[in-house]
Amino acid sequence: MVTTGAKHMQAEIISIGSEITSGQIINTNARFLASELFCLGIESFFHTSVDDNIKRIHNTLGSALQRSDLIITTGGLGPTYDDLTHNAISTYFGKKLFLDKKYLKEIKYKFYLKGYKKMPDINKKQAYKPKDAKWIPNKIGTANGIIWKRKPNKIIITLPGVPHELEQMWNDTAKPYLKKLIKDSFFYSTILKYTGIGESALAEKINKFFKLQNPVVAPYANLGEVKIKITSRGKSQTAAKKLADSTSKKIITRTKKYYFGKDNESLESIVAKLLISKKKTISLAESCTGGLLSKRLTDISGSSNYIKLNAVTYSNDSKINFLKVPEKILKKYGAVSKQAAASMAHGIRQYANTDIGVSITGIAGPTGSSKEKPVGLVYVGFSSKNKTKTKKVMFGSNSTRDEIRFLATQFALNWIRKEICS
Amino acid sequence: MVTTGAKHMQAEIISIGSEITSGQIINTNARFLASELFCLGIESFFHTSVDDNIKRIHNTLGSALQRSDLIITTGGLGPTYDDLTHNAISTYFGKKLFLDKKYLKEIKYKFYLKGYKKMPDINKKQAYKPKDAKWIPNKIGTANGIIWKRKPNKIIITLPGVPHELEQMWNDTAKPYLKKLIKDSFFYSTILKYTGIGESALAEKINKFFKLQNPVVAPYANLGEVKIKITSRGKSQTAAKKLADSTSKKIITRTKKYYFGKDNESLESIVAKLLISKKKTISLAESCTGGLLSKRLTDISGSSNYIKLNAVTYSNDSKINFLKVPEKILKKYGAVSKQAAASMAHGIRQYANTDIGVSITGIAGPTGSSKEKPVGLVYVGFSSKNKTKTKKVMFGSNSTRDEIRFLATQFALNWIRKEICS
Repeated sequence: MVTTGAKHMQAEIISIGSEITSGQIINTNARFLASELFCLGIESFFHTSVDDNIKRIHNTLGSALQRSDLIITTGGLGPTYDDLTHNAISTYFGKKLFLDKKYLKEIKYKFYLKGYKKMPDINKKQAYKPKDAKWIPNKIGTANGIIWKRKPNKIIITLPGVPHELEQMWNDTAKPYLKKLIKDSFFYSTILKYTGIGESALAEKINKFFKLQNPVVAPYANLGEVKIKITSRGKSQTAAKKLADSTSKKIITRTKKYYFGKDNESLESIVAKLLISKKKTISLAESCTGGLLSKRLTDISGSSNYIKLNAVTYSNDSKINFLKVPEKILKKYGAVSKQAAASMAHGIRQYANTDIGVSITGIAGPTGSSKEKPVGLVYVGFSSKNKTKTKKVMFGSNSTRDEIRFLATQFALNWIRKEICS
Repeated sequence: MVTTGAKHMQAEIISIGSEITSGQIINTNARFLASELFCLGIESFFHTSVDDNIKRIHNTLGSALQRSDLIITTGGLGPTYDDLTHNAISTYFGKKLFLDKKYLKEIKYKFYLKGYKKMPDINKKQAYKPKDAKWIPNKIGTANGIIWKRKPNKIIITLPGVPHELEQMWNDTAKPYLKKLIKDSFFYSTILKYTGIGESALAEKINKFFKLQNPVVAPYANLGEVKIKITSRGKSQTAAKKLADSTSKKIITRTKKYYFGKDNESLESIVAKLLISKKKTISLAESCTGGLLSKRLTDISGSSNYIKLNAVTYSNDSKINFLKVPEKILKKYGAVSKQAAASMAHGIRQYANTDIGVSITGIAGPTGSSKEKPVGLVYVGFSSKNKTKTKKVMFGSNSTRDEIRFLATQFALNWIRKEICS
């Protein structure tokens, strides 16, 4: 994290919940908030997780208020007896909570919309807040957060533990609120996305960029994807953006072969965009991936423009009867073979009458493998009017079923992307 | 988490590293250690993450030593300037670090084995430890941890930040060390899973159980699922398990209607188990869920026993030509209607020649809705030899596309489960 001479707001994240301190769930919220604070240029040096116990929440709040200006809590906003956050904060300051009748009505209405005859009594608790605090509206559930200013210059923001609720409330209310408080320095960050290359191999190609001070360039790896995050700082959003964009361009030039998109783009959204812009339709015949490729390509709203019919042909019979894969191919080479993949891709394209047909057949494990066909072996078929091609790919046999299935769809999507672009 | 009259060892996890506090990586180590401590019956109520700064590490250590008996740190054992853990702990106690020449030799040998001619000078730092501390050997890398006893009755254990090194060192040295210290208490926990009911409505049915001290009962909510966690404590694993199991039974009796499984079971694994045990086959015709139901039912290894062919029929043409949905149904009622759902379920069952046919058709949004057919409206069809039935379900129109798609498959899986059981 970059620090300049000026005094910056210092934040601290407190995650409240026994499900975290007992190791039941991973604390993804702390990471989300830390990286968001980082982009806002707000330093956060401490995160604390504490169980659902009012004394220990007080203890944690006490330490945090001593060393930080901004406290963001997550969790403990639910309706049950062990959801203590607002209660703990108000008792810490010796301030009462008051019933907000207007918000109580809203909660009741939310239950009505969900088809309940009556709001459960315990949810009434969620309509209480300190008088001088502002609600952070929860558009998804009933657990509103609050923004509460305490002298001297301390701000407390409470958010729920459910990640998608927390993110909505952060983006719609808490982040815009904090943005207004920050005047002198702006962060901007952009993420470049890669597939088909490992983290260290990619890092080697752009080694010199990691030494930069502004922007800061850092690599991250996910399953089947590597990301390069570029974070810049400037006197305005525009200045910061300009700096990051110029470095992005230089990095992309050196890594074009594996680069597929940036920021919110995903392999599926890129493929969807390409199919729509080139007016191409596609059909899928999946075996080992069981519908995951179809699911990913229909995650995008508007996917009915390019998808008409996909099939999950799990059994040999369905491959023979529906996709018209010749029985002799399955007998001679097996269902996991380049011949079967080619025939499946051709078959679904013919049946669905689309421009492109794609197939996936492989061994996702943990059962069904042999010496010749180990867990992780996958064939992908690609069929268009002019040609039908296949690719063989091997994913590590120590990968899990879920990983192999995901990596197979990642490989197929990237191949589709390249074929449409070429 | 339960506390009884007896004084138990209380632990605290401190994760050291700017990559955590700046949100660059998710802190999976804290979760791993917390769940391990939980199984050992060692309570841990606080986790703290702190950046690579010696003053702030001292601050964190100070708070932790006040409130806990056992401190486990992760990270900061590497060779570079910002790896500060051992240095910070020794300066906190005013104790010197000494070079362990024997371990220095080992580090050099590790580099030799890796094909290096010479150990980089900076790695020498990793051979220093307090004189009265014990090494925790790292079999993978060069970053050894330490176990250090400080009066009065405080134990400090340091582990590296790399997860697989941390796990090896925990399992081989730290965990066996702690096991010897614990004699009197064991924890056991089990999770009951529910769908088709909200968290607060479920909580109301079993309110009195939340007041128990041992076992402790607590609710958690995920999208389309509510969990009840039951955690017990006893003089042996068997005694703890017996206590939890007896409470589980009582809770299940009161909530049978919505209960579907426990612990690692999921709706899909339960449905898979039922299909296999009843020797039933199933086929799916999905529209708005785009393959997600097929994906979920094939997440289970061995799914080829009950799935032969599934279809994603996105377009009207594919519904008419492939599933034989009468064109007049689509014209009169539309593709999102109970008539279309029934015909789709019947059609896929006939084509795939399975015992059961299931269809999903709906508006996942954000586009494609109308006043009569809002975002979130979904019809599910269920067809068997004797009957074809449909259910209409409305998910909140403020739900996202992803949520609606997931909730629709959750609803369908639960219905399939009930039909097979009945």
